[in-house]
Amino acid sequence: MEQLTCYDCGETYPFGDVTRCRCGEPLWFETDAAAFDWPDASDGSLGRDALWRYESVLPATTPTGLAAAAGGTPLFRAPSIESTDGPRVHLKVEGVNPTGSFKDRGTAVGISRVDGPVGTVSHGNMALSVAAHAAAADREAVILVAEDTPDSRLAMIAQHDPHLFRVHGEYGRLYHDTLEHDLGAAFLNSDAPLRVAGQKTVAYEICEAFAPDAPDAIVLPVSSGGQASGVWKALRELDAAGLLTATPRIYLAQTARCDPIAQAYRRGASRVEPVTGEPTAAVSINNADPPSGNRALAAVAETDGGVVSVPEEAMLAETDRLAADAGVSVEPSCAVATAAVRDLAAAGEFGPGDDVAVILTGSGYKYGETEPDTSSVREIDRSDVPGAVRDAVS
Amino acid sequence: MEQLTCYDCGETYPFGDVTRCRCGEPLWFETDAAAFDWPDASDGSLGRDALWRYESVLPATTPTGLAAAAGGTPLFRAPSIESTDGPRVHLKVEGVNPTGSFKDRGTAVGISRVDGPVGTVSHGNMALSVAAHAAAADREAVILVAEDTPDSRLAMIAQHDPHLFRVHGEYGRLYHDTLEHDLGAAFLNSDAPLRVAGQKTVAYEICEAFAPDAPDAIVLPVSSGGQASGVWKALRELDAAGLLTATPRIYLAQTARCDPIAQAYRRGASRVEPVTGEPTAAVSINNADPPSGNRALAAVAETDGGVVSVPEEAMLAETDRLAADAGVSVEPSCAVATAAVRDLAAAGEFGPGDDVAVILTGSGYKYGETEPDTSSVREIDRSDVPGAVRDAVS
Repeated sequence: MEQLTCYDCGETYPFGDVTRCRCGEPLWFETDAAAFDWPDASDGSLGRDALWRYESVLPATTPTGLAAAAGGTPLFRAPSIESTDGPRVHLKVEGVNPTGSFKDRGTAVGISRVDGPVGTVSHGNMALSVAAHAAAADREAVILVAEDTPDSRLAMIAQHDPHLFRVHGEYGRLYHDTLEHDLGAAFLNSDAPLRVAGQKTVAYEICEAFAPDAPDAIVLPVSSGGQASGVWKALRELDAAGLLTATPRIYLAQTARCDPIAQAYRRGASRVEPVTGEPTAAVSINNADPPSGNRALAAVAETDGGVVSVPEEAMLAETDRLAADAGVSVEPSCAVATAAVRDLAAAGEFGPGDDVAVILTGSGYKYGETEPDTSSVREIDRSDVPGAVRDAVS
Repeated sequence: MEQLTCYDCGETYPFGDVTRCRCGEPLWFETDAAAFDWPDASDGSLGRDALWRYESVLPATTPTGLAAAAGGTPLFRAPSIESTDGPRVHLKVEGVNPTGSFKDRGTAVGISRVDGPVGTVSHGNMALSVAAHAAAADREAVILVAEDTPDSRLAMIAQHDPHLFRVHGEYGRLYHDTLEHDLGAAFLNSDAPLRVAGQKTVAYEICEAFAPDAPDAIVLPVSSGGQASGVWKALRELDAAGLLTATPRIYLAQTARCDPIAQAYRRGASRVEPVTGEPTAAVSINNADPPSGNRALAAVAETDGGVVSVPEEAMLAETDRLAADAGVSVEPSCAVATAAVRDLAAAGEFGPGDDVAVILTGSGYKYGETEPDTSSVREIDRSDVPGAVRDAVS
């Protein structure tokens, strides 16, 4: 498992020599999964093992410490957020990872494969994940954040003691800078082959939960296209292993305020063009020029899925609905995915017989509210508690 | 498993009839664990199953949805925070629970056992946990918070749409109010028998990870004494089942600014007296009159453990150390536990041959910083990135 390939032109390279294909597209690990089978499928432990359950198809060996604890997140059906005549909705809660997001999967695999310092270009979930895992593994970490990153996020990352740089200038180009220069650190960026190898394990877990059947669709938010690539890679491998009765369709969700992949999908294009986004609460998916956008589009096309743009208001309402009706607090960036399910059901794309798995990428507890809404709080005196409580629940 | 007993006087009651023993002490479920054995001990899945692995010794049956996902948290050794000549330190990371704290265990078991509305007296982890699990289970929830609860915490709880009351007056008495009045809701307070039954599963998981051996000690923060009671209950049950080669000693840690249980321990008393605490960053364990304090003292006495007071500065330094050296972000309220290990090692209570398991009760990511520390952030221009990064890691 030491060879990288291009999903698009098929070119191959030894791992470590290059960062992108000469055709310009991102690379991923070539994985021979033909002989893969579900491990211990009958032991009842499904869905709570860490991702290392799939070590035989990963480019790293099972580590100790924090990295061993990534993945193995819960998946459960949430009837309370299903639409009438809509599909069965199953939530894959990635906020239950060591640093509260899906990024721990790719970080754990990446840091277990490379030696020495690691780094990333991120000011959100990926920055926190790389900083924490580096601390746990006694490695140096380099985190490059954007100029306008709020202090509260910086402090959260800073607690893990990385080299933390606030970069002035064109932040969007930094991703490419870290590929082009030898910086003395292994950059585990959003679509780095090692990260994609780790991110794919979420789809392994989803499909194993449905085995020997398969879900009809997997729906997830898309930003760089790295996680979408991972899901697609997993489905290709599970297909090769003969473990899917039918290939789940991949649907991607974006915020309408920054939706280059959705725009390309609507144009019927196979190439994503950069857009000029507008400010949005979906900060984790506000990516105007996604480096794996073309590969994400290919994932959709090959699995007969789609890409949905979700208006800001619908996204915020869905964030509230997930917390109030399903008990799951998510970032607005995640809620585009269940909002997309709602839209797709209304459009007839999903029916009541369908099983749809939704990847909720990150916890909503981490970042708090800029303007906390406490309008529902009632003020009472202690002596009024019995009466007020009985009235409330009667 | 429908009978409650008093650990102290031995009185028994049918479940549902009373909330405290007539002697004044808290009750817990009588559990016949003599025939209990580790489930599937050889399947390699240990430590990532949810708590329902221990259904046979729980007063509830395995639920669906969010409650099914509580527990099953990672336990790993963290050599980077071990003292020279100190014990091996194993971290049980309870922040990796659906709402980011150990409270999900008791909430999950409680809500799976009772019907109708649920409630709690809390403005922290327990409030969030009860509100979220109630939302997931389509139940009404009543949350009674203290007058001075910050808006950011209220907003976090409010997202799960409970009946949220800010109570003016003597908040410390509210716990007793909810026991004395029929409020039309099942109050899953910190030491309610159903909660203690759920909280005990963390010690089952720790001991199973060491089986057929046992850790030498389990160290945890103490507030109400409910979690300490759960750990003790688990050890009693595992002893009864013949699954412990030796009983781990229970050590409890408090902040020196509010340490009624530690004061009683130092006095050699078996009864805890209320104290007047000082303001502390350890908000989750700032309990001046712990309702299960006597039972917590008994747990320590019976297992030959101890209670440690940790000064504020040492606690804050330990919080930083856990994030920077072990990659684990915790509340200051948790860090008293690893700080206590350091003190106990220095006092010769633990040696290099000992295995000490530390329960890190809650995630540090949830509550953020009032004054974010960004002093380590370096400002650079994009063009300086390659040089600055190479310098940093070389």
